[in-house]
Amino acid sequence: MTTATLGIAMIGHAFMGAAHSQAWRVAPRFFDLPLRPVMAVVCGRDRARTEAAAARLGWAEAATDWRAVLDRDDVQVVDICTPGDTHAEIAVAALAAGKHVLCEKPLANTVAEAEAMAEAAARAAAAGVRAMVGFTYRRVPALSLARELVARGRLGRVHHVRAQYLQDWIVDPAAPLSWRLQKERAGSGALGDIGAHIVDATQFILGDTIREVSGTLETFVSERPLAAEHSGLSGTAVSDRTGPVTVDDAALFLARFSGGALGAFEATRFANGRKNAIRIEINGSAGSLAFDFEDMNVLHYYDGGDDASVAGFRRIVVTEPQHPYVDAWWPAGHGLGYEHAFTHQAVDFVRAVAAGTDPAPSFADGLQLQRVLAAVEASATSRTWHDV
Amino acid sequence: MTTATLGIAMIGHAFMGAAHSQAWRVAPRFFDLPLRPVMAVVCGRDRARTEAAAARLGWAEAATDWRAVLDRDDVQVVDICTPGDTHAEIAVAALAAGKHVLCEKPLANTVAEAEAMAEAAARAAAAGVRAMVGFTYRRVPALSLARELVARGRLGRVHHVRAQYLQDWIVDPAAPLSWRLQKERAGSGALGDIGAHIVDATQFILGDTIREVSGTLETFVSERPLAAEHSGLSGTAVSDRTGPVTVDDAALFLARFSGGALGAFEATRFANGRKNAIRIEINGSAGSLAFDFEDMNVLHYYDGGDDASVAGFRRIVVTEPQHPYVDAWWPAGHGLGYEHAFTHQAVDFVRAVAAGTDPAPSFADGLQLQRVLAAVEASATSRTWHDV
Amino acid sequence: MTTATLGIAMIGHAFMGAAHSQAWRVAPRFFDLPLRPVMAVVCGRDRARTEAAAARLGWAEAATDWRAVLDRDDVQVVDICTPGDTHAEIAVAALAAGKHVLCEKPLANTVAEAEAMAEAAARAAAAGVRAMVGFTYRRVPALSLARELVARGRLGRVHHVRAQYLQDWIVDPAAPLSWRLQKERAGSGALGDIGAHIVDATQFILGDTIREVSGTLETFVSERPLAAEHSGLSGTAVSDRTGPVTVDDAALFLARFSGGALGAFEATRFANGRKNAIRIEINGSAGSLAFDFEDMNVLHYYDGGDDASVAGFRRIVVTEPQHPYVDAWWPAGHGLGYEHAFTHQAVDFVRAVAAGTDPAPSFADGLQLQRVLAAVEASATSRTWHDV
Amino acid sequence: MTTATLGIAMIGHAFMGAAHSQAWRVAPRFFDLPLRPVMAVVCGRDRARTEAAAARLGWAEAATDWRAVLDRDDVQVVDICTPGDTHAEIAVAALAAGKHVLCEKPLANTVAEAEAMAEAAARAAAAGVRAMVGFTYRRVPALSLARELVARGRLGRVHHVRAQYLQDWIVDPAAPLSWRLQKERAGSGALGDIGAHIVDATQFILGDTIREVSGTLETFVSERPLAAEHSGLSGTAVSDRTGPVTVDDAALFLARFSGGALGAFEATRFANGRKNAIRIEINGSAGSLAFDFEDMNVLHYYDGGDDASVAGFRRIVVTEPQHPYVDAWWPAGHGLGYEHAFTHQAVDFVRAVAAGTDPAPSFADGLQLQRVLAAVEASATSRTWHDV
Repeated sequence: MTTATLGIAMIGHAFMGAAHSQAWRVAPRFFDLPLRPVMAVVCGRDRARTEAAAARLGWAEAATDWRAVLDRDDVQVVDICTPGDTHAEIAVAALAAGKHVLCEKPLANTVAEAEAMAEAAARAAAAGVRAMVGFTYRRVPALSLARELVARGRLGRVHHVRAQYLQDWIVDPAAPLSWRLQKERAGSGALGDIGAHIVDATQFILGDTIREVSGTLETFVSERPLAAEHSGLSGTAVSDRTGPVTVDDAALFLARFSGGALGAFEATRFANGRKNAIRIEINGSAGSLAFDFEDMNVLHYYDGGDDASVAGFRRIVVTEPQHPYVDAWWPAGHGLGYEHAFTHQAVDFVRAVAAGTDPAPSFADGLQLQRVLAAVEASATSRTWHDV
Repeated sequence: MTTATLGIAMIGHAFMGAAHSQAWRVAPRFFDLPLRPVMAVVCGRDRARTEAAAARLGWAEAATDWRAVLDRDDVQVVDICTPGDTHAEIAVAALAAGKHVLCEKPLANTVAEAEAMAEAAARAAAAGVRAMVGFTYRRVPALSLARELVARGRLGRVHHVRAQYLQDWIVDPAAPLSWRLQKERAGSGALGDIGAHIVDATQFILGDTIREVSGTLETFVSERPLAAEHSGLSGTAVSDRTGPVTVDDAALFLARFSGGALGAFEATRFANGRKNAIRIEINGSAGSLAFDFEDMNVLHYYDGGDDASVAGFRRIVVTEPQHPYVDAWWPAGHGLGYEHAFTHQAVDFVRAVAAGTDPAPSFADGLQLQRVLAAVEASATSRTWHDV
Repeated sequence: MTTATLGIAMIGHAFMGAAHSQAWRVAPRFFDLPLRPVMAVVCGRDRARTEAAAARLGWAEAATDWRAVLDRDDVQVVDICTPGDTHAEIAVAALAAGKHVLCEKPLANTVAEAEAMAEAAARAAAAGVRAMVGFTYRRVPALSLARELVARGRLGRVHHVRAQYLQDWIVDPAAPLSWRLQKERAGSGALGDIGAHIVDATQFILGDTIREVSGTLETFVSERPLAAEHSGLSGTAVSDRTGPVTVDDAALFLARFSGGALGAFEATRFANGRKNAIRIEINGSAGSLAFDFEDMNVLHYYDGGDDASVAGFRRIVVTEPQHPYVDAWWPAGHGLGYEHAFTHQAVDFVRAVAAGTDPAPSFADGLQLQRVLAAVEASATSRTWHDV
Repeated sequence: MTTATLGIAMIGHAFMGAAHSQAWRVAPRFFDLPLRPVMAVVCGRDRARTEAAAARLGWAEAATDWRAVLDRDDVQVVDICTPGDTHAEIAVAALAAGKHVLCEKPLANTVAEAEAMAEAAARAAAAGVRAMVGFTYRRVPALSLARELVARGRLGRVHHVRAQYLQDWIVDPAAPLSWRLQKERAGSGALGDIGAHIVDATQFILGDTIREVSGTLETFVSERPLAAEHSGLSGTAVSDRTGPVTVDDAALFLARFSGGALGAFEATRFANGRKNAIRIEINGSAGSLAFDFEDMNVLHYYDGGDDASVAGFRRIVVTEPQHPYVDAWWPAGHGLGYEHAFTHQAVDFVRAVAAGTDPAPSFADGLQLQRVLAAVEASATSRTWHDV
């Protein structure tokens, strides 16, 4: 075990904050890391709630002024887990202060903000400061394996990509108007929140980028009850007033990748019965792959070269020591869960920082993805295809 | 068993001819029919091959002139199983001759032809002559059950329709240039051949129609070897010359239904490893349905009203006596196969003829569907949304 | 098409009669047969019902005296579809009369009867007369493929066989006392009715026989309402009197095969929610196979020699032209149903008769299987292992 | 967060040690605990390796004398993660020293040892000292839910239990002779190592115990290469000498539960392609349940009371806040992994200690299970049924 440390400051402590905390805590217990993460300080707006979060999540200190955190010598990494409208300001300042930055996805709520962040990251990289955006699903072992298989040429020329991210948490019209349904906070709805994940995952697996899109957006329920004031974290108490939903409930788009593949994408919060179903299927001239996050330790692979009498999609249980990240965990057949991908992200980030290399996905990658989302929105307005 | 008969003339005797023959043969053995189908005559272009087909498929006579068949008094039904470019001429003439017509899908290769056929069917209906287009998949019990559940209100307001028809039979660039890859014979490629099926099936299940579309077409392999002259039915012998593929290999489109549902459609012959995967998923405010023809006796159903601790997609094995068409066959758990839907089609057609009612889908339904396909093609050219 | 014919007399016309009729009707339409089956006469106890069955099922004549049928010159095959207590008498007489015999499973209700039948078949074989017992599931293409893969050495040394046949049709204690629940008619309950199928299927796939067993039988509901007199085929009307169930509701046994494999078998009519789930899994030193009749067109195959990073059970959709029996039917991906295996049985039987070879499974095979069932019953009584 | 602490000493630091360490570390971060676990000391035989484990796994100290650990005032819990042959000595001493004990399964290698341990636990309980045996799978949320559903009467009278634990890690005859294959260390092979888990899980779900068994054991490969001396943790280096395998490779048994259910159990390390497949299916008069650890976040449930037209096994994704343990983790659809059940075990243990109640499964439960295993072994020898 190394004695060299890497001090972390985490900004935000809700859902993503819990996942990132678990990652920093667990990573050095299963992986050999060149630097030992130290959970130095968590930062939030409300002192009492931030202190409770620090105790619960295991941070040494709580703070309420993120700018002050940037001055601390014991902090080398700023881990941004706040809503998207605050990413740009914090990340740009942190990079300017010489702190490595891990920023939750989406990089920002607008292309302009993302551009500023990518520029800041480019400047910082010249000074040896690293920046990474947090698309964790690519670090689910089954999806990492998918990329490896494509990179090894196992799929040949890719013809088709189809990807769906299906949830149902607001199918009830009585579900309250959370910040995720307000454009000024969330930037977009299903498109940016979950559509972003399948764009990243498929571009990552293919090692290719989307060139043009034709999409449509829909808001099925346009008015929802406001959450009651002072309602707690559970967020279920609603008032008798309502407010407008200003983001999309569902986003669908067709896409063409630079390498010629056709894509069909769908992200929705209205797929009744689907809780967090991320489905990706890729068909190439030499084989195919299929994945569903509802069975996250499995990758289906069709080898077009198999003898016809025994060809079929193989249900690969991605828990073998040969599979990405798996060797650090349990014996074959002992599956991983949702948060393990966050641990893998922390591992790769720490290793890149120690090695002085740029971790992926970079802020430039995050910007490119933001441009894809913006093209979908533009296409939905103009009702035509749009270049990214 | 009735002694009244219904004389059938079948035009064409390839893949669809074999399926229809099986249906006429088997239907009266399992279902109570008001008229007994008599397999009177099969008609083809080549005498020797048609006579062989008659013997093999069980038709009393073989003929080579379909017009002469229309004059026969022992023929009450003309069953059209030829390629799409001949449908209009035969069907219009048969209806004019007072013969009931069952015409394979797609109704025609162009909207203009389909319009003429729908007009002929309307005129014939006034005279008590029936016309039906053969979209058999809607008579797979699981899909018939899907329609029943939607009609019963089990899904509530439908938000999402996603449908894929995935095959891989020409993913090999060395596969020869069959008539199905030539626009003048086939009309279109994946779009009309298989895309038509998922349009019909989803419109049928919803009891709703597609209002507008935005689509794209792709031909991945634009030049293919010609089949060798005199090559037999198996069609594998190829010459060393090549010719252009003039239809789409894949068709993708987004759609909006009149009732407000969003649709995502994909039809392709390049999904490596998928042989005949028809996948349909429908999400509504009260529940969801999912189907895959690779497991054709099963319908997945999510009841949004189930208690949360035990809610989940139900794997309904659609072989109970309560399920559509099933009671005539075997005990529960003894699944049906591909051709059973053709038998169900024959049953419904014979019953409609006997009852003097119009069978569904009508030629008007076939025309509406043709307009959906035409709108997809127009959209693919203009790169914008098109009304149907 | 051949002009030589093979006249069939079918004895019994209930569930199995319908399945066999469909097989004789359909087989020559899809397969090249050296002799054309002629559905000459169906024989039952009740004249009116037998005539109705002849009309419905497509037999030229109806008869009520099976012995008289044996005298007919236009009958070359006797197809026995009656309950098990009548098999021996009919089969022995038919063979003595020089008729080829296809006898539904189980061969008989007792070992003694089965011995007499096997002896009769051996004598008849010397005179060129063929006998076969009807275990159709081995002719489901996925299970035929399973045998091929084992025979090709794809599994290596077989270590494990686990097989379950799960139904639930009498889980309701109010279900009436049918003949299948009476020992004098049915011989045994779940053991002989459905357990027999998984014994045959696994012995067939392995090309090996069960050497010894240790089993237990259970009757969960020992008294049931009698069916009302004159109740029809549907059999649901019950009287207010009850009678004893004299067969097993469930049979479980462990087995050792001659080749060293361990078997775990379970047959039950009390597996709530399982309608006709035949599950077979075989694990060998080089690979594994798994099958479930609820998804009957699929065989799962694990190749232990696959590279570890991409190894996994392959979901083989057994609808390729390379697969057993499939080439005669539809294109890839168009699945078969329950009754197709009966057609395959008819095809193999006709071909064997024409070729002058013994079809399998033979009456000797049926006798061996009967001895396995008898050993299970003996073991259940003695509570120890029994040799077959 | 509480400030009261609970000092833990863990004995052993291999596979189970890593899993338990993760549990102690993570439990207070997601669950509200009345006492905060302190990872005080880990104990092993080799000082250097134990110190390395302490650093890696996050224990404050390393020790090599487990008896000395029992004298420490800062230790209130002894967590036993060593092989089974050492459990009895450590547990009895720890309980006598007034330490709460969490002991990995199986409780011991013999019934006699288990009896001594259960007696020690009974004595300790009188003094307020708690003892628990570590069958973690019952705390996988899907299996906890299974028990809840049975307890709520959702299955009615249970007729069938079928359970398999399938692995393949020694199917290769060249796999070396580890301690798990030596009777003096491991007690038994597949039976005690993995068969024990499905016995516990099914007894737990039913709330019933096994009354009698009939089983068989098999060792397919009786001689294996010895591991090379000084071979590391990975254990793959083998010497050119061999030694005898003295435990079973596979164990199969039939069982009868006290409440009348029939059981079929199979545990094997020779199921090629199955890595850690724990499959449990339970059929009752009112419904059924099915589980497979390869898809560990899912429970399949059949409600026999559902309307027949929509009845089917429900695929419950056990990630809802209504499900056991789940509310503490992530939103719906974000699955858990293998080690989460260890965290749940730690949570329940800490809560029981704080509440002064006896955690389950108790040492008495572990003893009862040991008697089931012993009865299977006796039955395998005598080739008859044995009472537990």
